[in-house]
Formats: sequence, C-alpha cells, structure tokens
Amino acid sequence: MSNHVRIALDAMGGDHGPAVVVAGAALAHERHPDTRFFLFGHEDAVRPELQRHARLADAARVVHTDVAVRMDDKPSQALRQGRRKSSMWMAIEAVRQGEASVAVSAGNTGALMAMAKICLKTMEGIDRPAIGALWPTIRGESVVLDLGASIGAEAHHLVDMAIMGAAMARVVFDLDRPTVGLLNIGVEEVKGVEEVREAGRILRELDLPDLEYFGFVEGDDIGKGTVDVVVTEGFTGNIALKAAEGTARQIGEYLRAAMSRTWRARLGYLLARNALQTVRDRMDTREHNGGLFLGLNGVVVKSHGGTDAYGFANAIDLGYDVVRHDLQHRIAAGIARHAAGLEQRVQREAAS
Amino acid sequence: MSNHVRIALDAMGGDHGPAVVVAGAALAHERHPDTRFFLFGHEDAVRPELQRHARLADAARVVHTDVAVRMDDKPSQALRQGRRKSSMWMAIEAVRQGEASVAVSAGNTGALMAMAKICLKTMEGIDRPAIGALWPTIRGESVVLDLGASIGAEAHHLVDMAIMGAAMARVVFDLDRPTVGLLNIGVEEVKGVEEVREAGRILRELDLPDLEYFGFVEGDDIGKGTVDVVVTEGFTGNIALKAAEGTARQIGEYLRAAMSRTWRARLGYLLARNALQTVRDRMDTREHNGGLFLGLNGVVVKSHGGTDAYGFANAIDLGYDVVRHDLQHRIAAGIARHAAGLEQRVQREAAS
Repeated sequence: MSNHVRIALDAMGGDHGPAVVVAGAALAHERHPDTRFFLFGHEDAVRPELQRHARLADAARVVHTDVAVRMDDKPSQALRQGRRKSSMWMAIEAVRQGEASVAVSAGNTGALMAMAKICLKTMEGIDRPAIGALWPTIRGESVVLDLGASIGAEAHHLVDMAIMGAAMARVVFDLDRPTVGLLNIGVEEVKGVEEVREAGRILRELDLPDLEYFGFVEGDDIGKGTVDVVVTEGFTGNIALKAAEGTARQIGEYLRAAMSRTWRARLGYLLARNALQTVRDRMDTREHNGGLFLGLNGVVVKSHGGTDAYGFANAIDLGYDVVRHDLQHRIAAGIARHAAGLEQRVQREAAS
Repeated sequence: MSNHVRIALDAMGGDHGPAVVVAGAALAHERHPDTRFFLFGHEDAVRPELQRHARLADAARVVHTDVAVRMDDKPSQALRQGRRKSSMWMAIEAVRQGEASVAVSAGNTGALMAMAKICLKTMEGIDRPAIGALWPTIRGESVVLDLGASIGAEAHHLVDMAIMGAAMARVVFDLDRPTVGLLNIGVEEVKGVEEVREAGRILRELDLPDLEYFGFVEGDDIGKGTVDVVVTEGFTGNIALKAAEGTARQIGEYLRAAMSRTWRARLGYLLARNALQTVRDRMDTREHNGGLFLGLNGVVVKSHGGTDAYGFANAIDLGYDVVRHDLQHRIAAGIARHAAGLEQRVQREAAS
C-alpha cells in the first residue's frame, strides 16, 4: 500500500455528530495531507457535510450505515443494537481488517471501549485496556492513565498501566526512560490503598529498563509535571481530569470578570491580551483532546464528546502521531520485556 | 462560663510547628478577640513564639508536653507513642473534657483522625467520620467531602456524608435546604461504581427535609458550583482537591511567565495588577484552609500541614464559625431526622 495514514472515523459520534467530525477531519487533513479517511455514518447526514470540504472529499470515502450508538446507551445496549452495523463498530472493524490504522470516535466511552475490546481484543499479557491522555503541566506535558476505561484496579493492572503509559510517553515525548508515578493520597510508602502500595512494590522490584519508577505522587503533582507518566485507576483518573478542567474554566471565569471590572483592568487586559491568550491556549482542553486506548490490538482514539472541529482534529492528530511512530509495536515490545522480567524474578525466587 | 470561644491548638503540628501555629493564633485572635487559646506543645518551642505576640499571650495558656506526632508517623505509631501525652492528643482531649470547644491541628491527617475517633467517638448513627472543606466555585463556595478521612465507602457511608455535608452547608452558607450531588464519572444513572448508584437511590427515596438530592455530578461540576455539597469517598476526594490545587498553581505559573514576556504584557500586568490579585486571592488555598471533621462528638479542624500563619488563622476561623453557629448540634439533629426517615420507610414497606 501507499504511505498514507488511513483513518476510520465514527462520523455519528459525539454531541454534534457529522458536522464536527467531518470539519475536524478536514482540518486534520490540511495539517497532514498524507491522511486518508473512511467516514462511517448515515450518508444523508455525512455527504452534505463532506460537500463543504472539497479537499477532504478527495481523500475520504463515506461508508453508509443506518445505526448509530447513542451517547447515553449502556455498553450492553450499544453492543446489542450496534455490533457489526453501527458507525462506531465499523470504524473499529476497519482497524481490525487492516483497512485503517486508527479509529477515532467522539461517541460514548463505555460503548467504544466495549466494542474495541470485543473487536480488537487485548494484547497478549494485558488483562485490561486503559485510556491514556496528555495532560498539560508546568514542565510541559505528561501522560495520565487510566481516564475511565475501567473502574477499580488490582496491583497488576496498575503495573500494566505503568508499562503502557511509559510506552506512550517514550513515543509521544521521545524519551528513553520516562519517569512513572502512582497516584496516591500521600507520598509516604505507608499510605493509600493496598493495590497501589502493592503495585509500587512490584514496580520497584522489577526495575524495568523502559521506565523509571518514581514512587507515589499526589494530585497536585500532575500539574507540576513531577513525573512523565501518572498511573491511577479509571474512576479517580476521570475525576482528577475533570476537576482540573473545571478549575481551569473557573479561573478563566474569574479572570474574565476581574479584567472587565475597572478601566485600569480593561486597559491592562487590552495590552496583555496576547499573553493571556497563550495561557488560555495552554489550558484549552481542545489542545489535549484525545484519549488513546492502550493495550488493544489496534489503535483507537476517544475524542471528548462535546468538542468542536478544532478539538476533534487534535484527537485525529494524536492517532496520526501514534501510527507514524509505531506506538502499537513499541507497547507490545515493552510488555514482552516486562513479561521476561517477571519470569526472571520468579526463577530467581525459585532458585533462592 | 464566659462567652469566649475556647480553642485548643496542637502547637507542634504541621511542617513549621509553633512558629506558624502561634502566629496564626495571634492573627485569629485579632479578628476575633473573644477567642481564648490552649497551646499544647513543648514549652521551650512555644513560649519564645508566644513572646512575640503580647495580645495573644494574655489570651493563651501553654500546656507543656514532651511528645509530638511526626508528619510521617503511621496512625498506629502515633497512637502508640502519642496517646494521652502528645500535643495532638491533648488538644483533642481538651475538647472531650469541655475545656475547649474546638481543636485545630496542622499535623498528620491519619493520626489526627485516629486520635479524634478514639478520644471523641463518632456520633450516634454515624459509622465513620468524614473531612469536609470549603471549595471555591464560580458561584461562590461549596462543601466537598470526604477529603481523606477514610478510603472507600459503602452506600450508607455516602448517605451519611450527604447528611453531614448538608448540615455543614446549612450552617456555613446559611441555607435551608442545600443541594447535594454524588461525585461520579458520568451523570447518567447507569454509570459509576455500585456504591455510588445505590447511595443515589437511597437519597432519592429518602427525600430528606434538610437536603435536596440533585443526582450525580462530575469532576468539573465542583468548580462550577453545580451543587452546594459534593459527596465522594476519601481517596477520590483528596485527589480531586489536590488536582484542582495543582491546576490553580499551574495557571498561576503560566500567567506569571506570560505576563513578563513582552513590554506590552508587563505594562498590562501593572494596570491589571489589582484585578489579577483578586483572582489569585479567590484561588488561594490558604483562603480555604481547614478541613472540618464531621460526625464526631466534638469539633476538630485539620489545617494543611504546609500552610503559613495566614492559612492557619483561617483554619482556626473555620472552627470558630462552627462553634458560634452550633454546627455540632445541628448535625446531630440532621442525623436524628434521617434515622426517623429510615424508620418510617421500613414501616411503610412492612405495611405494604
């Protein structure tokens, strides 16, 4: 095949459906002309949007489907009604078949993960996939996972996540040995839930070549950028992410109000507008849109459901980068090395 | 007795010990001259600090103790070494004895909670205490709990927390029927962990007179101020709080950097300085310092360990307000009403 990156889109996913997905694809295609798109969705809804983007139209194929997963469907419902025939499923299926290298959807997270697991299966050595995302920090960016793929985690799930997150950080940040921290409510070894402490012990003992285990980190360490990779289970991860997003929005509101209260402040705002805009950009959730499903035999990216075309294009870009940098195989290699390390440890213990 | 509010301070608690605690007490005493203080701690460390604050010295009594709980002691260690004789224990004991109306400590949270539970005991009808704090929001402030008193929670623990948090909100915000939300990873009833969904069902059915159950809220609803009271278990609560604090600090850093990059931005900063300061003040963690222990037979406030005198004074103020508004009895009344509601429900079900 050609050197194109072929991308399968669930055109019906998200709060705004094809309007945002197609416009986002057009934007991503402008940035990366070597992309080709499959748009899975209802023709009557997708084609009119596509007509507005002539250049994308030349690089895209619409694949019609009647069925769309709703944002509030339970995963079981979505599977019952949408397996093999919904736009979401077909986008993932295109990855499984090798027709596309990555699937992107702004649809319902639970349904997307359930379908991706069934269709693509988890990688050998991985029990459960996780969702990893980039988080802006004072130092730059970090990978945070899991952002809601599954609730609760055993120690070995957390260890798997450390390995998957490190693989993502190696690729996305171009690091040899990213630092990894386990999110906890105190940095002392005695604190927190048993699974987290156990995972810490395992990571310290394993001393893996691909990651440097840092220890426990607390909620405020995420924004500080204390480590390259922050590992936590999905419930906490989702809430930490949204609490941070909420705080950013809140400060934005405070600033808006404060900067318009007096003429001095208004004048100051005019002068500092560009500077304030750079801050706004750095905290813009659209800039970091895109959760990467880690641990599956195929690349799937989840976009925020309520995002706009700009945000959706960034989610596509994340998928593009992952494909261009071959993350999939590098994670698999990391897991294989980990498995070897575990085996050696077992042998050592048996011999002693 | 007089109409003074008598406050017991663990003078050895926190990262900075007596220097911060005594200076904080002096500040609180200036704001509320009707306060009287017991300072529990090592005389040699406390007296020199007290000499710097003549007015406080007239309103304070130093009670000597050799033992101080360390910030990294495990609760079990702290109890073994500090029960009945540490500054932390003695501050709580003063509340139990009725010598003081509130104890304030910036010491180790786990040890403080363990000692408070043993010394004061939980209120009738409450299994486990929780830590509630005020969180700044776009609308004003909300109560968030639990911020780390205990990890994990059954449905009935979450229901108890809803009641305790609502009692705190009634008093602190002067509301008749505060709205209460359960923190979850999605607002749909189908999502999240079973305990949270079960707690939601119970709260909806109970339809308590003292609180209006709103439903699930997500992490970003905290900063929006969607509800007056946000309920979650302690691990998640602590991490959400610290993630938000980290984000606030991060944006502060971004702003500082951006506002000094060009002469236009610097000039803009000078003009808008007061406006920016009001935003900084609203997000200042010292402004909202102080976690209130809810569900105990006595008032205990936990200050952030790393805070300064200004922050510690605010933690004292929280305790002062609670005492002046008789929160203790109003929580007890709320729980009693809740117990009655449960009984009625059981009777209704038995009759049907």
